[in-house]
Amino acid sequence: MNEDTPLYYTDYLKLDDLLSLQSPKSLERMGELAHEEMLFIIVHQAYELWFKQILHELDSVIAIFKQDYIDEKNVGVSVSRLNRIIEIQKLLIEQIRVLETMTPLDFLDFRDFLIPASGFQSYQFRLMENRLGLDPEQRKPFEKAPYHARLSKEHQQLLIKSEQSLSLFDLVEKWLERTPFLQFHGFDFWQTYRNTVQKMFERDRKSIENNPTLSEDEKETELTELAATEKSFSAIIDEDEHNRLREKGFRRLSFKATQAALLINLYRDEPILHLPFKLLTCLIEIDEFLTAWRYRHALMVQRMIGSKIGTGGSSGHQYLKMTAEKHKIFSDLTNLSTFFIPRSKLPELPEDLKKNLGFYYSKKES
Amino acid sequence: MNEDTPLYYTDYLKLDDLLSLQSPKSLERMGELAHEEMLFIIVHQAYELWFKQILHELDSVIAIFKQDYIDEKNVGVSVSRLNRIIEIQKLLIEQIRVLETMTPLDFLDFRDFLIPASGFQSYQFRLMENRLGLDPEQRKPFEKAPYHARLSKEHQQLLIKSEQSLSLFDLVEKWLERTPFLQFHGFDFWQTYRNTVQKMFERDRKSIENNPTLSEDEKETELTELAATEKSFSAIIDEDEHNRLREKGFRRLSFKATQAALLINLYRDEPILHLPFKLLTCLIEIDEFLTAWRYRHALMVQRMIGSKIGTGGSSGHQYLKMTAEKHKIFSDLTNLSTFFIPRSKLPELPEDLKKNLGFYYSKKES
Amino acid sequence: MNEDTPLYYTDYLKLDDLLSLQSPKSLERMGELAHEEMLFIIVHQAYELWFKQILHELDSVIAIFKQDYIDEKNVGVSVSRLNRIIEIQKLLIEQIRVLETMTPLDFLDFRDFLIPASGFQSYQFRLMENRLGLDPEQRKPFEKAPYHARLSKEHQQLLIKSEQSLSLFDLVEKWLERTPFLQFHGFDFWQTYRNTVQKMFERDRKSIENNPTLSEDEKETELTELAATEKSFSAIIDEDEHNRLREKGFRRLSFKATQAALLINLYRDEPILHLPFKLLTCLIEIDEFLTAWRYRHALMVQRMIGSKIGTGGSSGHQYLKMTAEKHKIFSDLTNLSTFFIPRSKLPELPEDLKKNLGFYYSKKES
Amino acid sequence: MNEDTPLYYTDYLKLDDLLSLQSPKSLERMGELAHEEMLFIIVHQAYELWFKQILHELDSVIAIFKQDYIDEKNVGVSVSRLNRIIEIQKLLIEQIRVLETMTPLDFLDFRDFLIPASGFQSYQFRLMENRLGLDPEQRKPFEKAPYHARLSKEHQQLLIKSEQSLSLFDLVEKWLERTPFLQFHGFDFWQTYRNTVQKMFERDRKSIENNPTLSEDEKETELTELAATEKSFSAIIDEDEHNRLREKGFRRLSFKATQAALLINLYRDEPILHLPFKLLTCLIEIDEFLTAWRYRHALMVQRMIGSKIGTGGSSGHQYLKMTAEKHKIFSDLTNLSTFFIPRSKLPELPEDLKKNLGFYYSKKES
Repeated sequence: MNEDTPLYYTDYLKLDDLLSLQSPKSLERMGELAHEEMLFIIVHQAYELWFKQILHELDSVIAIFKQDYIDEKNVGVSVSRLNRIIEIQKLLIEQIRVLETMTPLDFLDFRDFLIPASGFQSYQFRLMENRLGLDPEQRKPFEKAPYHARLSKEHQQLLIKSEQSLSLFDLVEKWLERTPFLQFHGFDFWQTYRNTVQKMFERDRKSIENNPTLSEDEKETELTELAATEKSFSAIIDEDEHNRLREKGFRRLSFKATQAALLINLYRDEPILHLPFKLLTCLIEIDEFLTAWRYRHALMVQRMIGSKIGTGGSSGHQYLKMTAEKHKIFSDLTNLSTFFIPRSKLPELPEDLKKNLGFYYSKKES
Repeated sequence: MNEDTPLYYTDYLKLDDLLSLQSPKSLERMGELAHEEMLFIIVHQAYELWFKQILHELDSVIAIFKQDYIDEKNVGVSVSRLNRIIEIQKLLIEQIRVLETMTPLDFLDFRDFLIPASGFQSYQFRLMENRLGLDPEQRKPFEKAPYHARLSKEHQQLLIKSEQSLSLFDLVEKWLERTPFLQFHGFDFWQTYRNTVQKMFERDRKSIENNPTLSEDEKETELTELAATEKSFSAIIDEDEHNRLREKGFRRLSFKATQAALLINLYRDEPILHLPFKLLTCLIEIDEFLTAWRYRHALMVQRMIGSKIGTGGSSGHQYLKMTAEKHKIFSDLTNLSTFFIPRSKLPELPEDLKKNLGFYYSKKES
Repeated sequence: MNEDTPLYYTDYLKLDDLLSLQSPKSLERMGELAHEEMLFIIVHQAYELWFKQILHELDSVIAIFKQDYIDEKNVGVSVSRLNRIIEIQKLLIEQIRVLETMTPLDFLDFRDFLIPASGFQSYQFRLMENRLGLDPEQRKPFEKAPYHARLSKEHQQLLIKSEQSLSLFDLVEKWLERTPFLQFHGFDFWQTYRNTVQKMFERDRKSIENNPTLSEDEKETELTELAATEKSFSAIIDEDEHNRLREKGFRRLSFKATQAALLINLYRDEPILHLPFKLLTCLIEIDEFLTAWRYRHALMVQRMIGSKIGTGGSSGHQYLKMTAEKHKIFSDLTNLSTFFIPRSKLPELPEDLKKNLGFYYSKKES
Repeated sequence: MNEDTPLYYTDYLKLDDLLSLQSPKSLERMGELAHEEMLFIIVHQAYELWFKQILHELDSVIAIFKQDYIDEKNVGVSVSRLNRIIEIQKLLIEQIRVLETMTPLDFLDFRDFLIPASGFQSYQFRLMENRLGLDPEQRKPFEKAPYHARLSKEHQQLLIKSEQSLSLFDLVEKWLERTPFLQFHGFDFWQTYRNTVQKMFERDRKSIENNPTLSEDEKETELTELAATEKSFSAIIDEDEHNRLREKGFRRLSFKATQAALLINLYRDEPILHLPFKLLTCLIEIDEFLTAWRYRHALMVQRMIGSKIGTGGSSGHQYLKMTAEKHKIFSDLTNLSTFFIPRSKLPELPEDLKKNLGFYYSKKES
């Protein structure tokens, strides 16, 4: 197109093409449109447009984090883009309400024509999961087949390649490991932290033991739980313990990255840590909204087809509910709050460390 | 496609096509993508997909109301479909929040490439307005040009034809005029109503006159307003007065239809009137959400471009705000609550009239 | 107050009292307000106001369903009120977003002062569950103590009494059992249904067997699942099978009520069944939003305290997630879609049965 | 309360008091509860709880901005708190949907008992407006009476005092004026800006003149508008022109503050300007959501009472719509986008200025 050709809305958005991509199967197979099939198509096409947008943002953030060093400006840009993903996710959850205006009986009018198509075949959704960093080994096999069965060769390649590339999880982990936090010359943060935590647990233990409203049984239960929590605390200080948990699959993030993430959270009021804190928060929220969407979606599928098998050939809602919980990516960040201690008990950062933090973004590791 | 060919999600939704329809102009013109242009395209494409769905529902409801008689089953179907439109409208309003994650400065990165494309050129949106029944004469001329200037011949034809066809407004008006409500043999509803209303006004007048917290000035103001309201009441009983208001453009719905709509509202607790009441409520809500969307959209445009001219060549947000108020279609239904009287003061419907209402949907007028 | 005393907004809403009920513990215990504690209090007070409103609606619907017969007018009223509950539930889910603006570290600033207060001690929430019909035996014991431990005697009494009263579940079950659906003189619906279902399964079986994209293994899996679904279908026709499932805890609704609910769903396009269908749909949605709220809430709690014990003395988020799934009340209604068959295959209702349905609401059983 | 007394949820939230503050007038006056009045009370009480929370946040931000210098940490804290206000505002808009489940006819059942109480008498809402910085002279007189008529002496005092105190508008204006932006030693930003702007306008003029799709009439209209926009641009550079506009009421923010705000927007990608940019954005959004709420609320009131006078004695919805537009506080910030120029055309900040910006937050003016 010549630069001088005036551009119109319809052409810019390729509306003539866009609005001709809805081909209801009921019309093709029965010669009559099942009225509700249009909604089914439009909802899913809208989903896929938004998935494309999410991938567009994810890819740009991944590109930023692939750089050897990431200046504060780019952390700011990444936060904006991850925030946009979150806003889109909220919309995707609302969108379920629109789909729910179709009743199960309406769905039956065209369900049979769709077999074996299924939302599980959305390669963009799988790509999103892989780019974020879903561990391929954590994927629940669906119907004993790999998750990318039933996709075109091209899309399978795309997914396999994305599994092999560095994900946002990998890159954020590396970035965290590079923070200067881990060299506290002459300031023994972790000793101070350990003491504070111990006092906290003693207080908690006493508060259980002296609680007049608890029976002996209840006290015992709570004390056992407290002991477990205390043990879990040790993993934030003791690298070996952390690695044991990691081998068993209870942790995924490396020891160094975990410690750095904790420190960013604890000292997030330092201006220099404002954006890193926002970044970690965004990752937690993306995970949370993804989980909420899966769960809400599972409820909708259950209501739509009951315990019938889905069009793709499986009882979709049980699978979906299972994955809602299992397919989390950044739970290590979410669970960090386990290790928080009150601000009032937090050791003050030494002045030279604060300054050092100033170099955080701008200096490349040598 | 052969019936035995298995159908896959990607093919069903024509994803390969759908996801290739995003062609950022910044890439074409600058050789480099303005990152945010993708969002701009996707948001607008998602809007247009939803507009298509709204038109799909509107057309089906119009087809129902074009029939000589409309049975209760079909009123029920219409209510479901209008309700779906409302759910979609809620989503469209939420979608503005996603677009707002693009800042005005981001927009400037590619704004110049889009001139003179503009959201005002969405023919589907115009079509929606026409199908609902926006009075062509009420349209604010935009930039002195007709609203369908700058559209393709084909889309202009579509719009002109839709102006000339019966709109949902027209059809609902006719349907209301046909209700058996208007023949109350031997039951003078309107006399009873008039008496009740008069007592209500007397009570209101006294409550103003005896209000110790009002100054004389305030009392005078309120009494003048009350007189105006009282005068407006007369229009619901007096056909000539109604028609005078209609000529001046203060009313649009015919006298008979207005009376029928009022009665449906007042006696909506009668089971047989449940669905007609729901239908009128849906129309009010569609109007309300359309107005809310326009207004919210105007705020967003203002924030995006300030008082600059829009890409389409006008200060869009002032136009949008103006139309938010003026382009209402079913205000006569919204304003009906002016004429409501408390249930406790409502005359009981005679038994034979109730029964007669039973024939309401199923008998064709002869 | 005298009728002539003018009423002002502040007095009507008792604002002076309402706005003096926020007493942050941090202020009391530390002499300094933890800024975020105000949010914590206000959010929970807003929750409790809304719970009161939900109980107000629930109680009124229960009162309606306690009557010997329920006319259509009152089914309509019930649907409106249940719909309002749903709108409130949507708000409650949104409200979590506001609470999430408080970060875990902020929470630590006052968390210790709250021990052992906990949201689990909301008696209104428990009351809501009981009024809806949560089976007391299904309640997960929390910390080995009954769910109403730690409540005042008065509130405990209230809860115990609500357990012993007829719940909405009980009353809707009875109402369903009373429908005239179950006497189909001379029209053997269930035989027709059984035949249709059998054909459906045969078709499904063939479609699996002939699916070229499935491996032998996959086919076997799917056929096994199909057989299970087929078996579950038998329970809708065979009362003994239903009762076996009921004893094992897989069903809760009685056989007769289940059949009636299925028929209302299948023939919901009959005008006379419009409102009963809406009613069942509302119950499913209330359950669904309650579950969604619990789940979303669990994610929030996890993020707030990690795997620390909650202020009430337990790892709240695991408990919450568990209850999200287990504390469903109307799953039998949600799962009914399992037994749906396409409208095109549905036997036409005999004319006299349709008429008979007309008496449905107005005649008391004799 | 003794520190050792265990704290329970019910006591902490003062639930017994909170849940006894709903006193429906219908019950008092008619001896029978109008079912829907409970909703009316609860909705408004929930509003007032949230208003209290908003005031809590506003007051804390005002306290921060009253300090002689505001360090970056505190700008960060302010942004978080303003963001919370925005999340609450979103909830308030959703809450209208719940109130809309009450129909106009339901409202009539108790409307008469409420006269002359009215939402306009919410002193907390007025206080919010004053704290934000609504110009008292801009307030539309309501019914010829001052906006705080009909309030208790105590609440009137509160409002008058808040008018006389420094508002957030005032404080942000002063803060902007203090930014070091305005001393660009040896870097003539404004000359560079002026040149860029002139080129932009020339381009726009040519693009109108050469647009083959415009008629001569249309071209003339657009060129006139362009000239007006160009003139408005001069006000950002020319202090006298700005002050003329300010006297006429078209601007409110001082010249210096306006320039600083523009620069923060243009250079918001500089890390040091990240938080100031967020702060200005929050103020725009608070204004926008307040306007959206007023507008949405006005639509709801119109639907509820039509053109009847409100319980407080005026046609509320027209007043509300009028104020939606007129009661904006930060429009000068919203309209700043008028003066934006594309990033690609933005002069690079000199290195020493960037450094100087680093002292921005931490050094007190001497």
